[in-house]
Amino acid sequence: MTSPALDLLGIGNAIVDVLARAEDAFLAGHGMAKGGMTLIDAAAAERIYGAMGPGVESSGGSAANTCAVAAALGARVGFLGKVAEDALGTVFAHDIRAAGVRFPTAPLANGAPTARCLILVTPDGQRTMNTFLGACIAFGPQDVDEAEVASAAVTYLEGYLFDPPEAQAAFRKAAGAAHAAGRKVSLTLSDPFCVGRHRAAFRAFVREETDILFANEAELLSLYETDDFPAALAAVRREAGLAAVTRSEKGSVIVAGEETVEIAAVPTKKVVDTTGAGDAYAAGFLAAHAQGRPLGECGRWGSVAAAEAISHFGARPQTDLKALVARA
Amino acid sequence: MTSPALDLLGIGNAIVDVLARAEDAFLAGHGMAKGGMTLIDAAAAERIYGAMGPGVESSGGSAANTCAVAAALGARVGFLGKVAEDALGTVFAHDIRAAGVRFPTAPLANGAPTARCLILVTPDGQRTMNTFLGACIAFGPQDVDEAEVASAAVTYLEGYLFDPPEAQAAFRKAAGAAHAAGRKVSLTLSDPFCVGRHRAAFRAFVREETDILFANEAELLSLYETDDFPAALAAVRREAGLAAVTRSEKGSVIVAGEETVEIAAVPTKKVVDTTGAGDAYAAGFLAAHAQGRPLGECGRWGSVAAAEAISHFGARPQTDLKALVARA
Repeated sequence: MTSPALDLLGIGNAIVDVLARAEDAFLAGHGMAKGGMTLIDAAAAERIYGAMGPGVESSGGSAANTCAVAAALGARVGFLGKVAEDALGTVFAHDIRAAGVRFPTAPLANGAPTARCLILVTPDGQRTMNTFLGACIAFGPQDVDEAEVASAAVTYLEGYLFDPPEAQAAFRKAAGAAHAAGRKVSLTLSDPFCVGRHRAAFRAFVREETDILFANEAELLSLYETDDFPAALAAVRREAGLAAVTRSEKGSVIVAGEETVEIAAVPTKKVVDTTGAGDAYAAGFLAAHAQGRPLGECGRWGSVAAAEAISHFGARPQTDLKALVARA
Repeated sequence: MTSPALDLLGIGNAIVDVLARAEDAFLAGHGMAKGGMTLIDAAAAERIYGAMGPGVESSGGSAANTCAVAAALGARVGFLGKVAEDALGTVFAHDIRAAGVRFPTAPLANGAPTARCLILVTPDGQRTMNTFLGACIAFGPQDVDEAEVASAAVTYLEGYLFDPPEAQAAFRKAAGAAHAAGRKVSLTLSDPFCVGRHRAAFRAFVREETDILFANEAELLSLYETDDFPAALAAVRREAGLAAVTRSEKGSVIVAGEETVEIAAVPTKKVVDTTGAGDAYAAGFLAAHAQGRPLGECGRWGSVAAAEAISHFGARPQTDLKALVARA
């Protein structure tokens, strides 16, 4: 087994975020489930965009955010995901490459436009997402180069990939190639309702393919269809090699075999926007893990990166993260 | 004279900002004058964008920023400026309308793309701008409806309009229509080097057409080719009916005939990004002025809006400005 060229290869939906502030009444008026992610079609995207306030555009996508943050923390990172040959696709490709992430996936020509996620941020800092998948639907096994996967110590998959049908085949191919090369596979559950839409597939993938699992409390409870957190934690301890479960202001808990590590949340003055907090946690964890740091330190890097993410509008880092983890 | 339907009609370049953090060495390496605005062509825009870090896209444009902030403060506002029929043009039009600003200008079909401004923000919060004017070049007198101008109490022009040749004719038409209808004309000098490029035209326009002038210290010194601030202030007192001159952390000074009002800057914890600070000052001033408030209060509203603008990344407001001025 050769030494990996990449610490991390992320695979996910390639999305540009459009963030705007909104009152809770706006969510209610548009039938949006606060805090969740809803898939929308082009017509709904146009309707919601027309109704929402002035926006800020910023590259997003769950695994892509994780890749950008991990690169900012010094990891060697690649990302696979599908944009279109259009203005937003140019923005996405520029931003992820400018973050130092290798991004080899060919853009989609003559098809759906680049995906966008219309994100409403309420005064409490909570984000509610409406995703038009666009070109992401065209991401499939042909976009996964097995040699690329074999070159990465960890292949990281976002649970949102369970939604576009071809993507499921793509990440199964990636997981197979990673394990065949003696590498690790990491999965984030992404969203409790996404878990609900594909629960059996998620359960099987966690059991059979996942070495490092990321989830928040609601996602883990959804995975095991329980409202008992200790029971869900016991289940994931049996099924995944390592799991890091985030619990907002209660911090996070890492379970790996017999081992359990509890990590405190990093206090923040004000929650401006929670978009990308979970993505940043996974990035901090994996960047520290790539340096062979102990689990407690991996969790702390995750907490520091998540705290940075919620301190500003948008998912991508706006601060020197290396300096932040060095201070923590 | 009928009562005006609009408090403010802004005319300016319709631009989408692309903001990224950069070190001072990046500016030096690309021969950029820190703190300034440089006009660039499409090739330079591509080159700089390729070299700059991950970006955040946000609608911008000097007068357009002022319009968005003034609307947030309760003023009835319109804006004239030229975008193209493309993705960034859609973003610009959405954002300014979502801010509550009337935006009637027809987009440019089959011409240059929507203008963009590549903004590098250094660790001290200073912004350095590189503007590709694109479709703004096509803005001309045909885009100025004299009835629209006559319907606004104040027509507000950005000095950057001295650069695109047709725009000069457009704003002269607007100024004529405003004065013919008994309305006021306001001008912001925008940039000391823009003043330097068109000094004679600026001097004539200030003398002959400007009722309310906005400038920062460097712009005013450039206008009168002096390094003596009291001399420049005396000159503008003679030439403009009312002038509000901003001096960064030294606050601002308003001169109107014999009257002089000094306004303290609103202290801010950290200067994150100065983009749009001057635009926000003018907006606060004009929004208060539209309500008939005394000059000191107009200046304070300007200072509050400017302090909000420099507290975050990007030029458009991210806070409830009405609540901020109510508290101040």
